[in-house]
Amino acid sequence: MRILLIQGANMEWLGNRPPELYGTTTAAELDAIMQAEAERQGVELEIAYTNVEGVAIDRIYKAVRDGVDGLLMNPAGFLYAGYALRDCLHGIRMPYVEVHMTNIERRGMHSVLAGEADGLVVGLGIDSYLLGLEALIRVVRRRPAA
Amino acid sequence: MRILLIQGANMEWLGNRPPELYGTTTAAELDAIMQAEAERQGVELEIAYTNVEGVAIDRIYKAVRDGVDGLLMNPAGFLYAGYALRDCLHGIRMPYVEVHMTNIERRGMHSVLAGEADGLVVGLGIDSYLLGLEALIRVVRRRPAA
Amino acid sequence: MRILLIQGANMEWLGNRPPELYGTTTAAELDAIMQAEAERQGVELEIAYTNVEGVAIDRIYKAVRDGVDGLLMNPAGFLYAGYALRDCLHGIRMPYVEVHMTNIERRGMHSVLAGEADGLVVGLGIDSYLLGLEALIRVVRRRPAA
Amino acid sequence: MRILLIQGANMEWLGNRPPELYGTTTAAELDAIMQAEAERQGVELEIAYTNVEGVAIDRIYKAVRDGVDGLLMNPAGFLYAGYALRDCLHGIRMPYVEVHMTNIERRGMHSVLAGEADGLVVGLGIDSYLLGLEALIRVVRRRPAA
Amino acid sequence: MRILLIQGANMEWLGNRPPELYGTTTAAELDAIMQAEAERQGVELEIAYTNVEGVAIDRIYKAVRDGVDGLLMNPAGFLYAGYALRDCLHGIRMPYVEVHMTNIERRGMHSVLAGEADGLVVGLGIDSYLLGLEALIRVVRRRPAA
Amino acid sequence: MRILLIQGANMEWLGNRPPELYGTTTAAELDAIMQAEAERQGVELEIAYTNVEGVAIDRIYKAVRDGVDGLLMNPAGFLYAGYALRDCLHGIRMPYVEVHMTNIERRGMHSVLAGEADGLVVGLGIDSYLLGLEALIRVVRRRPAA
Amino acid sequence: MRILLIQGANMEWLGNRPPELYGTTTAAELDAIMQAEAERQGVELEIAYTNVEGVAIDRIYKAVRDGVDGLLMNPAGFLYAGYALRDCLHGIRMPYVEVHMTNIERRGMHSVLAGEADGLVVGLGIDSYLLGLEALIRVVRRRPAA
Amino acid sequence: MRILLIQGANMEWLGNRPPELYGTTTAAELDAIMQAEAERQGVELEIAYTNVEGVAIDRIYKAVRDGVDGLLMNPAGFLYAGYALRDCLHGIRMPYVEVHMTNIERRGMHSVLAGEADGLVVGLGIDSYLLGLEALIRVVRRRPAA
Amino acid sequence: MRILLIQGANMEWLGNRPPELYGTTTAAELDAIMQAEAERQGVELEIAYTNVEGVAIDRIYKAVRDGVDGLLMNPAGFLYAGYALRDCLHGIRMPYVEVHMTNIERRGMHSVLAGEADGLVVGLGIDSYLLGLEALIRVVRRRPAA
Amino acid sequence: MRILLIQGANMEWLGNRPPELYGTTTAAELDAIMQAEAERQGVELEIAYTNVEGVAIDRIYKAVRDGVDGLLMNPAGFLYAGYALRDCLHGIRMPYVEVHMTNIERRGMHSVLAGEADGLVVGLGIDSYLLGLEALIRVVRRRPAA
Amino acid sequence: MRILLIQGANMEWLGNRPPELYGTTTAAELDAIMQAEAERQGVELEIAYTNVEGVAIDRIYKAVRDGVDGLLMNPAGFLYAGYALRDCLHGIRMPYVEVHMTNIERRGMHSVLAGEADGLVVGLGIDSYLLGLEALIRVVRRRPAA
Amino acid sequence: MRILLIQGANMEWLGNRPPELYGTTTAAELDAIMQAEAERQGVELEIAYTNVEGVAIDRIYKAVRDGVDGLLMNPAGFLYAGYALRDCLHGIRMPYVEVHMTNIERRGMHSVLAGEADGLVVGLGIDSYLLGLEALIRVVRRRPAA
Repeated sequence: MRILLIQGANMEWLGNRPPELYGTTTAAELDAIMQAEAERQGVELEIAYTNVEGVAIDRIYKAVRDGVDGLLMNPAGFLYAGYALRDCLHGIRMPYVEVHMTNIERRGMHSVLAGEADGLVVGLGIDSYLLGLEALIRVVRRRPAA
Repeated sequence: MRILLIQGANMEWLGNRPPELYGTTTAAELDAIMQAEAERQGVELEIAYTNVEGVAIDRIYKAVRDGVDGLLMNPAGFLYAGYALRDCLHGIRMPYVEVHMTNIERRGMHSVLAGEADGLVVGLGIDSYLLGLEALIRVVRRRPAA
Repeated sequence: MRILLIQGANMEWLGNRPPELYGTTTAAELDAIMQAEAERQGVELEIAYTNVEGVAIDRIYKAVRDGVDGLLMNPAGFLYAGYALRDCLHGIRMPYVEVHMTNIERRGMHSVLAGEADGLVVGLGIDSYLLGLEALIRVVRRRPAA
Repeated sequence: MRILLIQGANMEWLGNRPPELYGTTTAAELDAIMQAEAERQGVELEIAYTNVEGVAIDRIYKAVRDGVDGLLMNPAGFLYAGYALRDCLHGIRMPYVEVHMTNIERRGMHSVLAGEADGLVVGLGIDSYLLGLEALIRVVRRRPAA
Repeated sequence: MRILLIQGANMEWLGNRPPELYGTTTAAELDAIMQAEAERQGVELEIAYTNVEGVAIDRIYKAVRDGVDGLLMNPAGFLYAGYALRDCLHGIRMPYVEVHMTNIERRGMHSVLAGEADGLVVGLGIDSYLLGLEALIRVVRRRPAA
Repeated sequence: MRILLIQGANMEWLGNRPPELYGTTTAAELDAIMQAEAERQGVELEIAYTNVEGVAIDRIYKAVRDGVDGLLMNPAGFLYAGYALRDCLHGIRMPYVEVHMTNIERRGMHSVLAGEADGLVVGLGIDSYLLGLEALIRVVRRRPAA
Repeated sequence: MRILLIQGANMEWLGNRPPELYGTTTAAELDAIMQAEAERQGVELEIAYTNVEGVAIDRIYKAVRDGVDGLLMNPAGFLYAGYALRDCLHGIRMPYVEVHMTNIERRGMHSVLAGEADGLVVGLGIDSYLLGLEALIRVVRRRPAA
Repeated sequence: MRILLIQGANMEWLGNRPPELYGTTTAAELDAIMQAEAERQGVELEIAYTNVEGVAIDRIYKAVRDGVDGLLMNPAGFLYAGYALRDCLHGIRMPYVEVHMTNIERRGMHSVLAGEADGLVVGLGIDSYLLGLEALIRVVRRRPAA
Repeated sequence: MRILLIQGANMEWLGNRPPELYGTTTAAELDAIMQAEAERQGVELEIAYTNVEGVAIDRIYKAVRDGVDGLLMNPAGFLYAGYALRDCLHGIRMPYVEVHMTNIERRGMHSVLAGEADGLVVGLGIDSYLLGLEALIRVVRRRPAA
Repeated sequence: MRILLIQGANMEWLGNRPPELYGTTTAAELDAIMQAEAERQGVELEIAYTNVEGVAIDRIYKAVRDGVDGLLMNPAGFLYAGYALRDCLHGIRMPYVEVHMTNIERRGMHSVLAGEADGLVVGLGIDSYLLGLEALIRVVRRRPAA
Repeated sequence: MRILLIQGANMEWLGNRPPELYGTTTAAELDAIMQAEAERQGVELEIAYTNVEGVAIDRIYKAVRDGVDGLLMNPAGFLYAGYALRDCLHGIRMPYVEVHMTNIERRGMHSVLAGEADGLVVGLGIDSYLLGLEALIRVVRRRPAA
Repeated sequence: MRILLIQGANMEWLGNRPPELYGTTTAAELDAIMQAEAERQGVELEIAYTNVEGVAIDRIYKAVRDGVDGLLMNPAGFLYAGYALRDCLHGIRMPYVEVHMTNIERRGMHSVLAGEADGLVVGLGIDSYLLGLEALIRVVRRRPAA
């Protein structure tokens, strides 16, 4: 099973972002945690960071063409107005789990992408990624073979 | 570790609710699945169903008084206007994870309780409960001892 | 044919409620009128009053389990924010006719439950109940046998 | 007793309108059903179709001048913006019962005329007309003689 | 000088309309008052009543073609949604004074036509027509000859 | 008959205000026109300018105490948020006619005071004042003697 | 192929309407242009003007009964509140192309009918009609034979 | 004089609720304070806590039937959506004073019940209850004997 | 203890204002009642009336400079748009109790100042002032000495 | 004549996008169709796809600098929030025709770019492009030479 | 060059206002800083404080009559609802620069006057005044001589 | 001191953009003006243009890593929906001054970024940049050394 993890706008700054919200784990450390978990779960994980919404779209279409099995994404800065990204997610049929490190609801934020997700894991910091990966694997496994 | 699972308004009807949204697992079957998982995780799980918001509030205060460690809840029908329940959650400091079987965002719904949660797991059917329990256990464990 | 009539929040106060809106017929007198009409129509009628939305939900699920054929309800005080009750009505497939004694539209009110009804009879005082019962009987009779 | 039934915009198309909403009974067939029911009830019924809101207003003033006793109307296409018709209904004091074949609430529609009605019967297809006529007769009969 | 007075939807009912708002002067009596005033002012006055917005539009274009000098109108029931009439007024360049017998502002109403008027006289009952005519004559007289 | 004319905020600047909207007549010239007209009509006219809403209120209460018969006012800059002035107008029972030189509707403006007026004359430049005075005199004359 | 072209409210005034928006071509000249184009395309074109929404509805039902193949319409003044016309278009299944001479979007206008169209051609002046006719012919031709 | 004090949803938790908002006085201590004050004022005070809106309604109707003279209530969690409770208060004619410990306005909250109160005392902590009781006694005393 | 009572816009008119809302006590009588109560409570009371919001602001700053201990205010006409006054109240740290004679909530009004108050007493007529004074004294007394 | 066709976000996925909305023609096939039509019309056509709004802006400025005569664009995913692109279109004076394959109005969508277009062709699938090209050629030809 | 600086509602309190927002510089100290800067720039500066919007208007008209060259203003408490002041600024043609000490945007505030300014300097504390003065001088100097 | 100036979407087009809004200075000329001013002030200035929001984000993070001292930015086309850029600005702690050449308020526009700025200079054309640079230098200098 191959999984693509997209880290949306400003996630490269993790570790420097307000630590009372996002903790002190850096992007590089998070990548290592996720690769270790992927290995433990026996799945192949590719991680991509971008601050450009359209580049995220490019990356997703490429993944579909390459036969990737599922998409894990923290849209981060794309959650506000990522309507083109939403259309992209709507048009592909790849399993998609969305994660947020913080409880965006409590912060008065709303993801325009959330309606396209097969599942959401929200508010649990690094655990959002770990449980999100587990959720995505379950969604992919439940899918009937084509 | 002791966990309380509250099933909100209309969850007693699970299995009869529109199966294209909620599947065919009944409330009784879900209870069995959750008790098995709780046993596997080594936690004590109590499950309560109610259609009355105020009764849910009563139940939560009782749990706090009894020293229960965490609350897992699918507010279901209380998500629309459960403001009194929201105040209750806000006033206690018990770890709380909220779960929804369906992607409520996609259905144009919004939980007034979500802002009070330490974590949310949404859209994964029965897996929302299983991952929600796992998330809650992590939250409780991360808590410093009093 | 078995019919359940639910009288929602504050209907117990009928006869004392502002008489220029609701007339002077008391709840007990209305019950007698309805039982007489049910007998005339050859249907069995059970009447339940409650001020608690969740108790109305409990009562409806019980009726479905007991094989009641149709639901007549004046949601009264539940019309404003009875979203959990709405979900309950949505999940069952029992024929439902909603009645209001006054023209709620004229009073600037709106029933969140109305969208779930097979029929509505509004504004006719006691006649709303009588015509509502007749409407419900017609709906039940039109139903194909299971 | 003399009753005027006005069929508003697009009702002439009944039978051709989406049958999953309106059934297959044609306008002519409905007229026959209503005339039979009027005869059974011992009232005189006049039926008028129009697609022009102002023509409906003309027709109503004529009815008041002619001493007609009550108005039954399915405003149909006039429900959206029939404000002039609403003022007309407000200015006359003729008993008025409004009917809709479908549950307009469920379809996200709202009648600007409904606040002027003495009663509404909604969502019951052809039965909306039959019960609406019965409701109107009751309203007229309850009226004190001038 | 030739003036066209249009009486919009429901004005034919004047005298029967709620007298606490509109007084007891009938449409015919108002016509006589206005003709007398027109004669006194030395202008020719034509009066047209219609309940159909499009017929009012027809009438205005005809007046422009006939060289009428100014339009006095109580849009009455057309004030709510008379957008087509508004476009008509916008496209012609005939002086236009709008009158309302009652203070529509106080009644929570708003005329979509008002923005097209050269002047408005509001709230003065029959005097609204008399002063409106005087206002219109002034507007016409101030116009430069073509 | 004694009349008070209040010129609201920025009316002192008349003649300098954008002339395409307000013409080139100055405040002093307008005062002379109005005094001449008052003399012609046989009424006593007092004119007061102020840019301070509360001073306008002071002036109105003084007028009521002094037995002034009617109020003519162009609220000008007070139309937007003159809620205290509105309450003042509501509490006194002095006849009040409101005038605006321009068609405020066309300019997207709305007077919060208009609902308190016995009559409005709008959009006719200097003529708004002249016809407004005439309207006010008619309103005062129609009043029954105390 | 038979096509009906409806020119909505105020289109009779074409040529006199503000020429900076609509040009100087008159209604009669436009009719000639369209008939010539229809002949060139080998289709039969009937053109109807009306200022009355309900009359447009009458005309459309007649066209359906007469077997007309497609409807081209510039709703003009009906675009604001032509809800009854919208229901008519929704209920028939005749191909419909809507045209506007000006870019209504730029002017802050919105057609309540547009959602019912098989195609829209907007903003191109007379060319909107010519391309609209071409579009309609293509829609009709793509239709499967009944 | 007999007074009923209802403590709405979550008031049982007083003392544990965020103390920077509600202080550290517990529900039991508040009860004692209020009973002492009632004794001092020579009135009989009954105190009821409930988290269920419908139970509060039940309690109020019982009080009316029992001849209680006035209602003091902190609706607490019922302030958000207690519409059925509002109808109850509207239908009875018992004097009602509403109290809030905190300045709900400052916290962006709004009580849907407030419009039914004869008086409100807000923001003064425990003093809200004491002054509220005094206010209610004054209201009851001003009432004319039946 | 020194207290300043500010009577906002239109309060000078008390006794003449609609008596069904405000009673027949005049401003002068109310002043006497309040001075008597202040004497009874052993506090020094200064009363100021103004219709000008900015003058109220001037007065408050003067009071702070003079060492006045607390502010009692009925903002009256300033409640609608008294934003500058609100900023003034926000910037000083003087205890502030706001009173309203009528239940403004019931009348659909909202005070933009209320969020700045230490306490509110609403709807009790003259008693609002008396209880408001008592409340303010309690707030001042609870304050720690500087 | 040189024309630039921009295909906005997600158009690269054409053919895979929901075929009930967009048909089964792929992006490559559409390019071929358009090049053939351009050749037939004797115009030079350049086609650019991008998922990045800013890249579309870059491309348009380049086209203006290169002397391209007109812009045809399906903004696709940029229609929701392409405000920067809108400013770009507003600042250049190149003729612009916007096309949409589906009736976006019917789908509840709205293009923030549409107000900048010289013409729009909407809802006709591939024909939207063909007629859009024709419309653009007409617009360019009508332009006066510089 | 002569400049008028108006300090709006509550600016007299500078130095006492919340220092975390406005610093500890007093109004008198700020005046001295500004006079020193004016002298350095070779311009004549007059400073006026007022809490009354209408007095600010009076002051501005006086300045225009006296030939003052430019207006610098911190509207402070007038930013919320200073519509009359806005009209005043709109009607004069004196250069106007608006300053705010704090980032009002960040605080969720909006100045209704800002649209009338030739320039705005926001958020820089005392520097807002200094740079605002510099900006105003530049605007005045760029003006063509009359 | 090192300063980064970012020119947002469409600023490359300066000089060609509507000159009545933006003047005729080109982007290259503005760069020269700014470099000269930076030299005069003794600061190092780097200027970057981009039409892609995410590229602006990339550039800002690079600047933070490189130890740049402050950010000057005209977000231009990013002001409408640059939420990801806003989060970027929020997460870094680099001093930021935002400039706009035109009074965006007057044009009905609003910058979603403005709340993150330490200062704003708006509406002064090229002077907005010059004063903005001066403002930024002041902000940087006021910062305490780390």
